[in-house]
Amino acid sequence: MPNRYAYLGPEGTFTEAAMRDLRPDAPDEARIPCDSVASVFDAVRSGAVDGGVVPLENSVEGGVTATIAELINGEPLLITGQTAVPVEFALFARPGTALEDVKRVATHPHALAQCRGWLAQHLPDADTHTVSSTAAAARTVAEPGAPFDAAICAVFAGERYGLRALAGNVGDRSDAATRFIHLSRPGPLPEPTGTDLTSLVAFIADDHPGALIEVLNQFAVRGVNLTRLESRPTGDRLGNYCFCIDAEGHVAEARVGEALMGIRRVCRDVRFLGSYPRSGRTDDLDPPLRPRSTTDADFAEAERWLARIRSGQVD
Amino acid sequence: MPNRYAYLGPEGTFTEAAMRDLRPDAPDEARIPCDSVASVFDAVRSGAVDGGVVPLENSVEGGVTATIAELINGEPLLITGQTAVPVEFALFARPGTALEDVKRVATHPHALAQCRGWLAQHLPDADTHTVSSTAAAARTVAEPGAPFDAAICAVFAGERYGLRALAGNVGDRSDAATRFIHLSRPGPLPEPTGTDLTSLVAFIADDHPGALIEVLNQFAVRGVNLTRLESRPTGDRLGNYCFCIDAEGHVAEARVGEALMGIRRVCRDVRFLGSYPRSGRTDDLDPPLRPRSTTDADFAEAERWLARIRSGQVD
Amino acid sequence: MPNRYAYLGPEGTFTEAAMRDLRPDAPDEARIPCDSVASVFDAVRSGAVDGGVVPLENSVEGGVTATIAELINGEPLLITGQTAVPVEFALFARPGTALEDVKRVATHPHALAQCRGWLAQHLPDADTHTVSSTAAAARTVAEPGAPFDAAICAVFAGERYGLRALAGNVGDRSDAATRFIHLSRPGPLPEPTGTDLTSLVAFIADDHPGALIEVLNQFAVRGVNLTRLESRPTGDRLGNYCFCIDAEGHVAEARVGEALMGIRRVCRDVRFLGSYPRSGRTDDLDPPLRPRSTTDADFAEAERWLARIRSGQVD
Amino acid sequence: MPNRYAYLGPEGTFTEAAMRDLRPDAPDEARIPCDSVASVFDAVRSGAVDGGVVPLENSVEGGVTATIAELINGEPLLITGQTAVPVEFALFARPGTALEDVKRVATHPHALAQCRGWLAQHLPDADTHTVSSTAAAARTVAEPGAPFDAAICAVFAGERYGLRALAGNVGDRSDAATRFIHLSRPGPLPEPTGTDLTSLVAFIADDHPGALIEVLNQFAVRGVNLTRLESRPTGDRLGNYCFCIDAEGHVAEARVGEALMGIRRVCRDVRFLGSYPRSGRTDDLDPPLRPRSTTDADFAEAERWLARIRSGQVD
Repeated sequence: MPNRYAYLGPEGTFTEAAMRDLRPDAPDEARIPCDSVASVFDAVRSGAVDGGVVPLENSVEGGVTATIAELINGEPLLITGQTAVPVEFALFARPGTALEDVKRVATHPHALAQCRGWLAQHLPDADTHTVSSTAAAARTVAEPGAPFDAAICAVFAGERYGLRALAGNVGDRSDAATRFIHLSRPGPLPEPTGTDLTSLVAFIADDHPGALIEVLNQFAVRGVNLTRLESRPTGDRLGNYCFCIDAEGHVAEARVGEALMGIRRVCRDVRFLGSYPRSGRTDDLDPPLRPRSTTDADFAEAERWLARIRSGQVD
Repeated sequence: MPNRYAYLGPEGTFTEAAMRDLRPDAPDEARIPCDSVASVFDAVRSGAVDGGVVPLENSVEGGVTATIAELINGEPLLITGQTAVPVEFALFARPGTALEDVKRVATHPHALAQCRGWLAQHLPDADTHTVSSTAAAARTVAEPGAPFDAAICAVFAGERYGLRALAGNVGDRSDAATRFIHLSRPGPLPEPTGTDLTSLVAFIADDHPGALIEVLNQFAVRGVNLTRLESRPTGDRLGNYCFCIDAEGHVAEARVGEALMGIRRVCRDVRFLGSYPRSGRTDDLDPPLRPRSTTDADFAEAERWLARIRSGQVD
Repeated sequence: MPNRYAYLGPEGTFTEAAMRDLRPDAPDEARIPCDSVASVFDAVRSGAVDGGVVPLENSVEGGVTATIAELINGEPLLITGQTAVPVEFALFARPGTALEDVKRVATHPHALAQCRGWLAQHLPDADTHTVSSTAAAARTVAEPGAPFDAAICAVFAGERYGLRALAGNVGDRSDAATRFIHLSRPGPLPEPTGTDLTSLVAFIADDHPGALIEVLNQFAVRGVNLTRLESRPTGDRLGNYCFCIDAEGHVAEARVGEALMGIRRVCRDVRFLGSYPRSGRTDDLDPPLRPRSTTDADFAEAERWLARIRSGQVD
Repeated sequence: MPNRYAYLGPEGTFTEAAMRDLRPDAPDEARIPCDSVASVFDAVRSGAVDGGVVPLENSVEGGVTATIAELINGEPLLITGQTAVPVEFALFARPGTALEDVKRVATHPHALAQCRGWLAQHLPDADTHTVSSTAAAARTVAEPGAPFDAAICAVFAGERYGLRALAGNVGDRSDAATRFIHLSRPGPLPEPTGTDLTSLVAFIADDHPGALIEVLNQFAVRGVNLTRLESRPTGDRLGNYCFCIDAEGHVAEARVGEALMGIRRVCRDVRFLGSYPRSGRTDDLDPPLRPRSTTDADFAEAERWLARIRSGQVD
């Protein structure tokens, strides 16, 4: 039986597009839509599926808060991949509907927010209605007797539900994108690729002006660049914060490993979330800028030097 | 005509509770429920209302992402107040329904996530359904012929819609809370109270390992503590980040003013979001810890000293 | 009566050369040699002279420790100028003496240390004797019946005392130099030139791992580069330290002024030592690298912005 | 044959007192006075002696600059011990001389500077003369037909040369002290004692505002406190600096070892100068404050945790 993967559905979501990006070889029947982020996590934890894909950041589908809450507080899973999907919206309707017929438009609230300019210009008189996802909007519009004339959704969602595009690129920002992550049960990490990310949650030991700088310095002194940083209430109460951090590099690298040990020492707790390739398709990315003297070879050289001076060989 | 205030509705949301906290004297008819965070912002911007309340952080109603997006990218508004509302869930049903009759429970997805433990123990066989807010769940359950038997919602939402509590405190964390902010059109800032917060968005000039530390140091060297820090894609594209920052103190204070000027100099752009009391009820908060030598008097003394040495008076 | 200037003598020291550099128009009789650094300070303090020149750093004459001690603990004077003098040594003897006649060489201990290579090669059998300055060595050699055959000293010292050069450039390092400072009684500071230095002594408030970093960050966040940093016992007891700091820029500049105010706030005490041109001849220096956004115009723009946001003008 | 030790002479210097402190069991004939700091270094390097003692900091004998220059630029030696000697001055004269007979006082320039207050009060009319060390002053006064009536020197120097004390504690600061170091040829380091210091010279890779902070952060993030920091011209030319650093802890400790490796990576060059007990008599010192989570056990725990997460064990 092939591996099975859960994702935040329904069919036609951007998350499904990310899943195709991350697991291109999985057959259709191996991709299981779930109705919430929590359900995806649970399906992976229980072993019902072998992996799962959920949105992490800037999603137009909602779900980011839910994803981060599960990563921080839920039973631990590992992030084993990530990808970014361009967010392009189109206006879809049932075949036979013309643009001038559109009186009621359905979409997700975030999508609506991102398409306001286009709507004000081209459909100034249309009513807008929000539903739980852009894919759900497309699905609803496709149903006979639907209360909406058109959906703002992704092209693949419109096509999936047999709709016809009335307009493409109706979003006000042409280069929006959403990041998605692939989850696995604890086990061997993906091999380093040279363009990896490492994710973790740092629980600050006490609340003082320099606590966060102290954590960031643990990365900075080892030349590790951060790509995402977000403070979050720990769930205990407002005012107790943890920091969700994405850093460049793989925990198998000396610089990242040493930085994580430093954070482990100065923090109340650290949750390691995984090291994984920066994209499902790593070949289309420039290698990240790497500060000098941060390669494993640099660390190994310094270690040999330390062994020499510890034995008193200074000449 | 009294001042009017918009909030994220429907009636019975935690946001309405926050509104009552922040504007306790506003009569019922002055509180206008809106169906989205964006609608609240727009109502304030257009002048249709005099102020608005939306959730900012850890909301169980959704909406945080939307709030932050509006604050960062929308036409500027000022935050002029904030409050935190404890998040306590109860199970409500129509009068006459007993706990053992409950087969279908409606609530918001985040609320569902926070009540799983209780549900697994007390209603292991009930189906759960998610709707757009906990208040909407209560309203739907109250309707004749509702497809759900019970709602997980706030006590005030259940009571608002004429339901009866079957169980209180059904959340798995007893001390969850949500922060809400009050928005106003640009104008005079609230007076300093001694327990204020200042919010801003910093757009980093370029992406290098030390860029964020550079910004944080602008606060640290003036003894300004941060209470929230969140990196956000700027909306241009993934990889371009800005930082949403809440800092202790009021921009009218010397230490905060100087820190903001420093950030203004080193950043590509800074958006000031407001200085406002830490709570609608400031009297129940301990004063924040203030590092030594950061009062306005300390800054004034240093300024007098600078004037002296600039004129060569060193003895 | 022309202004009079004290310097660390006797005639022919490198300090006299620095004096000629810093006060080129002073006639010979206006330059007063003193027999110790302390005497120069005292002559300035008492008003006996209008200014004084002493070595500050890397001196081959000795005296750096004495200079710094006077700057830190003595009655305050202002540094109003500085210059660097190349340290070139030559071997001088009385007329008629040949190199092969030289059996006993006199010089200052530091000069001896810097000329060992040359001596080992060219005068391997000569005895070396140390005296209080290289100028004193020259003067002594010039005396009838001197116990030494030759002096290692500066060219101008050898010539001053009527000696003849047996060899030039006898130092092992061809680019050694010494920095000298010009002292004045408290009064108007030298005007900013664009290539200035500012000197101060910072007395750390308490001894903890981050105390010095805290001080350095006060400079760093305002883009002020340091050119010298030296920890010194305060004189109270070993273990109580202060930091002697030279920073680029003039206290009249906004960035320097603000940095000094920050240090004033976080330190137990600060002694301002002066702002002065980096050299007596400023035209032969490249302008220092200046981090972006650190001009007075940048500070003024940030101040205008602060005034706007404090009045609530954010749009 | 017993071990032999060189020190900065002549007999009666404070350096000899330090030598007795550091090598209390060495018989008199094993202590070899040298006439310069460089001679002490050379005697150790050549193997003529087994160790040497020189002043490092705040010396009233001169010599600090020379010591540091040898440590930075000379053929490498290891610091294997240090001690601090209280600097107490007394006025000594030949037997039969009364205080009122004293017209000419000899001493070292730094000692003169430290005894001015006493001289102004008790011998306002005496001439003062400076010689190469306080011990030399005592020796000279002791000679028949000496040109001086009294010497300001240490008690042990006065007694050594058969003089009689006219007054004790003539220094203006009662708690002055000088630090001395013991030098050895490269070889096994002294064992850690729990109150150790580690000395090194860091050659900054390039000159930018943050370079020094970068180095200091390498210590700070590992909780290593600095006790001395001094910028020094490298000897190449003015403007090229290195930093002489004394840090708490022994290089055999994980925190110090890792900090040194970090500095090795970010600096152009690092010269390790040794790890050694903070005093010759370690039992009279309070243990240094140690930031939390910096013991070897803390480092070992973090290393075990890293091994676990690298193998994907996160639950």
